[in-house]
Amino acid sequence: MTILLSITGFEPTRWLKALTDHAPQRSILLHPENAHDPSIEYAVVWHQPTGLLAGLPNLKAIFSIGAGVDHVLKDKRLPDVPIVRIVADDLTTRMSEYVVWRVLDHMRRGLAYHAQQDAVHWRPRRRQPKASEVTVGIMGFGELGRDAAGKLAGLGFSIAGWSRSEKHIEGVQHFSGEAGLDAFLSVSDIVVCLLPLTAETRGILNYGLFTRMKKQTPMGGPVLINAGRGRLHVEADIVRALDEKVLFEVSLDVFEHEPLPPASPLWKNTRAFLTPHIAAVSEPEALAPLIIQQINAFERGEPLKHIVNRTTGY
Amino acid sequence: MTILLSITGFEPTRWLKALTDHAPQRSILLHPENAHDPSIEYAVVWHQPTGLLAGLPNLKAIFSIGAGVDHVLKDKRLPDVPIVRIVADDLTTRMSEYVVWRVLDHMRRGLAYHAQQDAVHWRPRRRQPKASEVTVGIMGFGELGRDAAGKLAGLGFSIAGWSRSEKHIEGVQHFSGEAGLDAFLSVSDIVVCLLPLTAETRGILNYGLFTRMKKQTPMGGPVLINAGRGRLHVEADIVRALDEKVLFEVSLDVFEHEPLPPASPLWKNTRAFLTPHIAAVSEPEALAPLIIQQINAFERGEPLKHIVNRTTGY
Ligand SMILES: NC(=O)c1ccc[n+]([C@@H]2O[C@H](COP(=O)([O-])OP(=O)(O)OC[C@H]3O[C@@H](n4cnc5c(N)ncnc54)[C@H](OP(=O)(O)O)[C@@H]3O)[C@@H](O)[C@H]2O)c1
Ligand SMILES: NC(=O)c1ccc[n+]([C@@H]2O[C@H](COP(=O)([O-])OP(=O)(O)OC[C@H]3O[C@@H](n4cnc5c(N)ncnc54)[C@H](OP(=O)(O)O)[C@@H]3O)[C@@H](O)[C@H]2O)c1
Repeated sequence: MTILLSITGFEPTRWLKALTDHAPQRSILLHPENAHDPSIEYAVVWHQPTGLLAGLPNLKAIFSIGAGVDHVLKDKRLPDVPIVRIVADDLTTRMSEYVVWRVLDHMRRGLAYHAQQDAVHWRPRRRQPKASEVTVGIMGFGELGRDAAGKLAGLGFSIAGWSRSEKHIEGVQHFSGEAGLDAFLSVSDIVVCLLPLTAETRGILNYGLFTRMKKQTPMGGPVLINAGRGRLHVEADIVRALDEKVLFEVSLDVFEHEPLPPASPLWKNTRAFLTPHIAAVSEPEALAPLIIQQINAFERGEPLKHIVNRTTGY
Repeated sequence: MTILLSITGFEPTRWLKALTDHAPQRSILLHPENAHDPSIEYAVVWHQPTGLLAGLPNLKAIFSIGAGVDHVLKDKRLPDVPIVRIVADDLTTRMSEYVVWRVLDHMRRGLAYHAQQDAVHWRPRRRQPKASEVTVGIMGFGELGRDAAGKLAGLGFSIAGWSRSEKHIEGVQHFSGEAGLDAFLSVSDIVVCLLPLTAETRGILNYGLFTRMKKQTPMGGPVLINAGRGRLHVEADIVRALDEKVLFEVSLDVFEHEPLPPASPLWKNTRAFLTPHIAAVSEPEALAPLIIQQINAFERGEPLKHIVNRTTGY
């Protein structure tokens, strides 16, 4: 009943404390002395080192501390145990707040007003669209996409959705698969990407797709917001499309390489708004108890929830 | 049945066209040849010249093209006819979108991320508050304040309200008058000012009030958003309070003098976000028909709606 915590890329301290607080009777190992420790039955991970999990003889389940599992599945030597992802109000709410924030900022010309302020330049932009004149298209209409859609609709935005499978949702223009992509893009003034990173979605946000986006929008051109994963987009194509005004403005929370290298021309582009992968932070205090509850339920013989499909990759 | 259109500060062309489109049978005069034209029965105004309206012998009503009437009442020689203001979904919606946009931008640390991007600096701010941890206090709980409150509550924010009269509104902590101001300020993490400018409210947002605001907030300190009127605040006090960290961040849409003079230190303050009085623009295409409808109804003998009280000034 020991839990291995394996986190790469940031300080694991808060996760260690939160897991310990909620499972005081278990040992939580951060760097096990024995890499093949037979007492380890569960692993809680973010970008675990390749091969680490395959070496654990009694592993029963792997828990991603995020909604995505691309960081788990990139390890090609994973043991054949369930991989569980996070589905939690705390995380979903944070993502919806990010999405509504970024959509409103583009609709209200926040980037232009920032630039005007820098230039000490007073210029009202009088033809201001309102929410009911703007359609937000959400690529990836899953847990996060649907919640963001509901909050945007509550503010009066029209909503389009795009996913792998067909869906019928009241008040949403929904499209699916490659066959539905052009129709989806043709109605979307602002495209918000909340896809998981899989073999099928890698690089989907590329120059070709940008040229298929709606050209005339109430903002002046198409806007892209990517809060899924950096490798869903091709950064060089975003830079080119911004330069050519194929894309009007972008908000990016995720990047091909994080931290985004200082040499990236995106940093200095006043039509790009960048955040350092904070759209929806996994807060250990909110999420560790959910992981511990799942482990406890599993040990009582109940099924694990939110298991990912290794074939589709999400 | 002639209508005088008197607008100072911006191009009246769109208003002239929209009024004409909706009242083709009336004459709409922009600069009447005779300043005392007896055919003029209605005036549609924004900052009309002092004394202009007093000279019209047959004036029956004055229509402000905005929700506020301070720009009408500053003329101390007004004739004794009803003054009507704008109450319209189109305007209210735009203001709520501005308020939600600015509240989310402060909660999500948009100003800090802008500064980081300028400095090519990747730094996730991990302790990110969410809406349910933030109370937005709305000063001026009228047409605009109540709608913004509803939209913020829909996103999970807690709401406090402050107005002249007592109110009981489900889900809102409401306070009134000078007696309720400290209690209101003590629960509000972000204060949004949507007051009208009157003799009582002029300069209310001053250094003294800022020191009475909540000191510990999830953002790090108190935030002020003013979209009411510039003379509700004392700009020098805002500058001082920002410098002393008495105020953490501000969004200002309105200023003591508009356009804001280039010498104002606010332009270059990275903890201030400025917009050129565009929080809720009066769109002639949406509002002119409402004014014409009121005139037509009035001529049929129906009472005018949204008449302001000259004693209270709003
Ligand atoms: N930036 C951040 O801070 C942050 C935080 C949390 C999560 N995320 C990202 O957000 C992603 C989504 O999370 P979620 O919980 O909403 O996932 P989810 O519930 O699994 O939803 C995924 C959605 O994407 C669709 N999809 C997957 N592959 C597709 C394809 N090839 N073509 C079209 N649609 C496809 C799915 O379609 P079906 O509905 O048909 O299955 C589903 O609608 C995560 O994977 C993660 O990468 C980012
Ligand atoms: N920046 C922009 O683009 C823009 C656009 C439109 C409007 N505005 C401004 O927004 C203002 C508000 O519009 P509105 O339609 O919401 O007005 P409203 O319906 O008349 O509401 C005014 C509110 O302020 C309260 N109030 C007035 N005097 C007060 C005092 N001395 N102490 C405490 N509370 C006081 C009123 O209290 P009671 O409820 O007790 O009467 C009421 O709740 C306008 O006057 C205008 O200046 C700005």
